[in-house]
Amino acid sequence: MNLKDYIRSIEDFPKPGILFRDITPLMMNADAFAYVVDTFADHYGGSNISTVMAIEARGFLLAAPLAYRIRKPLVLARKEGKLPAESYRTEYSLEYGTNVVEVHRDSVRAGDNVLIVDDVLATGGTLAAAIQLVEQAGANVEGLALLMELTALEGREHLAGYEVFTLMQY
Amino acid sequence: MNLKDYIRSIEDFPKPGILFRDITPLMMNADAFAYVVDTFADHYGGSNISTVMAIEARGFLLAAPLAYRIRKPLVLARKEGKLPAESYRTEYSLEYGTNVVEVHRDSVRAGDNVLIVDDVLATGGTLAAAIQLVEQAGANVEGLALLMELTALEGREHLAGYEVFTLMQY
Repeated sequence: MNLKDYIRSIEDFPKPGILFRDITPLMMNADAFAYVVDTFADHYGGSNISTVMAIEARGFLLAAPLAYRIRKPLVLARKEGKLPAESYRTEYSLEYGTNVVEVHRDSVRAGDNVLIVDDVLATGGTLAAAIQLVEQAGANVEGLALLMELTALEGREHLAGYEVFTLMQY
Repeated sequence: MNLKDYIRSIEDFPKPGILFRDITPLMMNADAFAYVVDTFADHYGGSNISTVMAIEARGFLLAAPLAYRIRKPLVLARKEGKLPAESYRTEYSLEYGTNVVEVHRDSVRAGDNVLIVDDVLATGGTLAAAIQLVEQAGANVEGLALLMELTALEGREHLAGYEVFTLMQY
């Protein structure tokens, strides 16, 4: 299956000069969506993943069916102020300003083997922040699973030392 | 299975006086999470749903595995400015101020039978807005599936005429 058939490119979103890769057509094709989830499940079938971590918001769309399919705990990495209980928190830089990602302290524990899931690997900033939270908890990052990789942004280089699995490259 | 065993109640979140029902422990229990997805799938097994609509953000966590399980298109109802293509948009009132929900115009079409999925039925404001968008597209709301219902807020009364299916009531 050629997954790129289900990606729509939209110019100047969210701001002028950016070519946005829209995954919503893929979500709307049940066979393509199942192919994505099943490919992730097959790839990690022999691994010792204990926990699937979903990055808000589009990462939820991939991590939740994957966790369901491989029957593993699903934990959330959310934006600032969304998680109600005591959380780990990290701030990271964006092109302009900073962003925050949080994880409940009781959701990741020492010795866990965590698979981090999101839709797009761009600069890797959000993923690096999620890695930091997992490791702060004493857990191990078993891998990073992304639907799409924007290679020009060199996110993979920023995540050197981690297993990065992406299904499409632009 | 008693799903309430996996819900954590947190006082004064997101603001003083609110008792927040935290679903993250349920997400972390793979059997409980699978039970939720499978119960939704069984409930709608005989229906003629054509499309599963996920309400951002926690609705993504339930709608995505359900769409995967019943192999139906997954479409997104998102917060303002998140969807890149031409969208239907509706504004609705909150206790203080207003909120906006948007749906891509090409994601819901006349004649579709849409199941709307979210985590919590509170006042029903977000759901009513999502219903309005579906109907604006000429599609039919086949049902509303929620993990949890906060009965004191009378959301069900605000959604009279629609099939509302909830797995837990508080």
